[in-house]
Amino acid sequence: MEKKLILSNVDKEMKIALEKYEEPKDIKRVLSGMRPTGKLHLGNYFGALKPWLELQDRAESFFFIADWHAITTSYQDTRDLAENTVQMMADWLACGLTPEKSTLFVQSWIKEHAELHLLLSMITPVRWLERNPTYKEMMENLKDREIATYGFLGYPVLQTADIVLYDADTVPVGIDQLPHLELSREIVRRFNRFFGELLVEPRPYLSEAPKLPGLDGRKMSKSYGNCIYLSDSKEEVEKKVRSMVTDPARVRKTDPGHPEVCTVYAYHKMFTPEEKVKEIEEACRKGEIGCVQCKKLLAQNINSFLEPIRSKREELLSDRDSLIDIFREGSKRASEIARKKMKEIKKAVNFLV
Amino acid sequence: MEKKLILSNVDKEMKIALEKYEEPKDIKRVLSGMRPTGKLHLGNYFGALKPWLELQDRAESFFFIADWHAITTSYQDTRDLAENTVQMMADWLACGLTPEKSTLFVQSWIKEHAELHLLLSMITPVRWLERNPTYKEMMENLKDREIATYGFLGYPVLQTADIVLYDADTVPVGIDQLPHLELSREIVRRFNRFFGELLVEPRPYLSEAPKLPGLDGRKMSKSYGNCIYLSDSKEEVEKKVRSMVTDPARVRKTDPGHPEVCTVYAYHKMFTPEEKVKEIEEACRKGEIGCVQCKKLLAQNINSFLEPIRSKREELLSDRDSLIDIFREGSKRASEIARKKMKEIKKAVNFLV
Ligand code: SF4
Ligand code: SF4
Repeated sequence: MEKKLILSNVDKEMKIALEKYEEPKDIKRVLSGMRPTGKLHLGNYFGALKPWLELQDRAESFFFIADWHAITTSYQDTRDLAENTVQMMADWLACGLTPEKSTLFVQSWIKEHAELHLLLSMITPVRWLERNPTYKEMMENLKDREIATYGFLGYPVLQTADIVLYDADTVPVGIDQLPHLELSREIVRRFNRFFGELLVEPRPYLSEAPKLPGLDGRKMSKSYGNCIYLSDSKEEVEKKVRSMVTDPARVRKTDPGHPEVCTVYAYHKMFTPEEKVKEIEEACRKGEIGCVQCKKLLAQNINSFLEPIRSKREELLSDRDSLIDIFREGSKRASEIARKKMKEIKKAVNFLV
Repeated sequence: MEKKLILSNVDKEMKIALEKYEEPKDIKRVLSGMRPTGKLHLGNYFGALKPWLELQDRAESFFFIADWHAITTSYQDTRDLAENTVQMMADWLACGLTPEKSTLFVQSWIKEHAELHLLLSMITPVRWLERNPTYKEMMENLKDREIATYGFLGYPVLQTADIVLYDADTVPVGIDQLPHLELSREIVRRFNRFFGELLVEPRPYLSEAPKLPGLDGRKMSKSYGNCIYLSDSKEEVEKKVRSMVTDPARVRKTDPGHPEVCTVYAYHKMFTPEEKVKEIEEACRKGEIGCVQCKKLLAQNINSFLEPIRSKREELLSDRDSLIDIFREGSKRASEIARKKMKEIKKAVNFLV
């Protein structure tokens, strides 16, 4: 009973945020981050990286590896944090993010994120955070409740600091993050009311990525073990595609199929030229193509897509220092902006600076 | 009913902390801070500064102006923050804190306080903070509840960061702060369990200061308007002492008095030589001294005590840049230690540094 009640509250927050949503015009500065929790998979690519690639051509773009955020939930095991950070650097650059178009940096290298987080924490009512859908969901679960940390409760405050430190006016988000950005906007308005119009109120940019399912048809997620990673070898991709679920109605090659329920078909729509996709659809419905053959073709196409990314990744990781240096350079640029902004903010709050 | 329940919980936390208390031996490094909320009064002097003066002769000492902490509660009006910071610098040095014996610095000038606060926030369960007596007391009050901020909830986390950043093994505290330090110790143990024995568990040092009442006999507090400030002029002191409450039984000079209930007498014990205090006590009991005369003597003695502090204050404030520079120097030294420590900590957590 209570569970239902709270979940409907969660939906309400989302609905409010969605109703308020307007596609932002004249985007000037975009900022977004990604938690380095492991190698990127195809779901991450289509869900986040691809929209970023488009944005870096349209606006001044800041993208950061959110290593502070990575430990909000996984603080009990941070063994792979540094390695995950380097892997993410390689993934980003291999996919086409480039320091020539974007400022690429590491969150924890810019101390001002922590400073502004601390400052904004002073003006953010605890109640605003407790009403955050993600937090409420976690508190639903009694086991998690025991380990809900202060940092987890406050991560929307850190996100707000991340954004406003760079005067970003636009933030690409998924639907589920809309309420967080709404909260950021509230915090910004509160700050500006107290200390003058100093912070830019960020607008959400909903990137409508078609969802790529995992191998088993569920959401692609590391924890389900159903991912294809950008770093997977040719053979791994072939093996994984072979294991994909297809239309259960097809036992023999001649059984008529239903592509709309087939995971392999969903992938074809992303990786196979449109003409060929139509052919496959028809052949499948008529029972004129076998799933084995259909999967072979898909594996080929995924591999063609991944091949340049894969080799670029390897090249980048063969000289880790130079790879890291690209982010050091970006962080230097980010740092200058952040330091200047933080100084302005501290002055506005009347700190002795 | 509920109020009682919660207050008894508060007492319980204090009792537990007090029972655990042991006077620390072989103090190596002491650290403490003070919120710059205004000029210091005599209550602050005897309650905090005087113990610090003793400690700076006994151990390596770090004292900081806690400007971050100042805005945990007064974020809605920070107009005087910078000025209060400078005034506190003058008060400290005028009373005898000296850069030759102590490292004197400003909290917000060392970005690592905010960084470590952020890190420790990730491992501190919200529940530990909610059980903080000071927070519970605030939440008691429905009006305050509306404005309870995330930063206020988390200030014991910031206090913990302040302490462990400098490997301080000993922290001078009042009894009411014992539970906070107990919480710091818990956070330290939790960090060390996750990431290795890197943080020093700080011990409380209870400085038993005899309490100096305010002019009206209540606790001396800015908000009661019953303070004598270190910066008060000779005339202000005389006027304030004249306004002090005395034994209400004394109407005429010849009425026998009861020094133990007299505020003026409480002050004499702090400002008047022991011999003379005895004389006054006897004379008062016998009705041989008038309150007017008794107060005149007290005003003289307070003024003798304040005179060197007052003139040193003025001298320091006549060259504000040099005054601030003393804290810039101290902050440089503090910063070196903090930067090194924070790097170690980040490495232990496996950040890419
Ligand atoms: S032929 Fe292709 S689209 Fe049809 S069910 Fe088999 S794998 Fe799916
Ligand atoms: S004589 Fe002095 S000690 Fe006695 S009541 Fe008056 S002020 Fe107090």
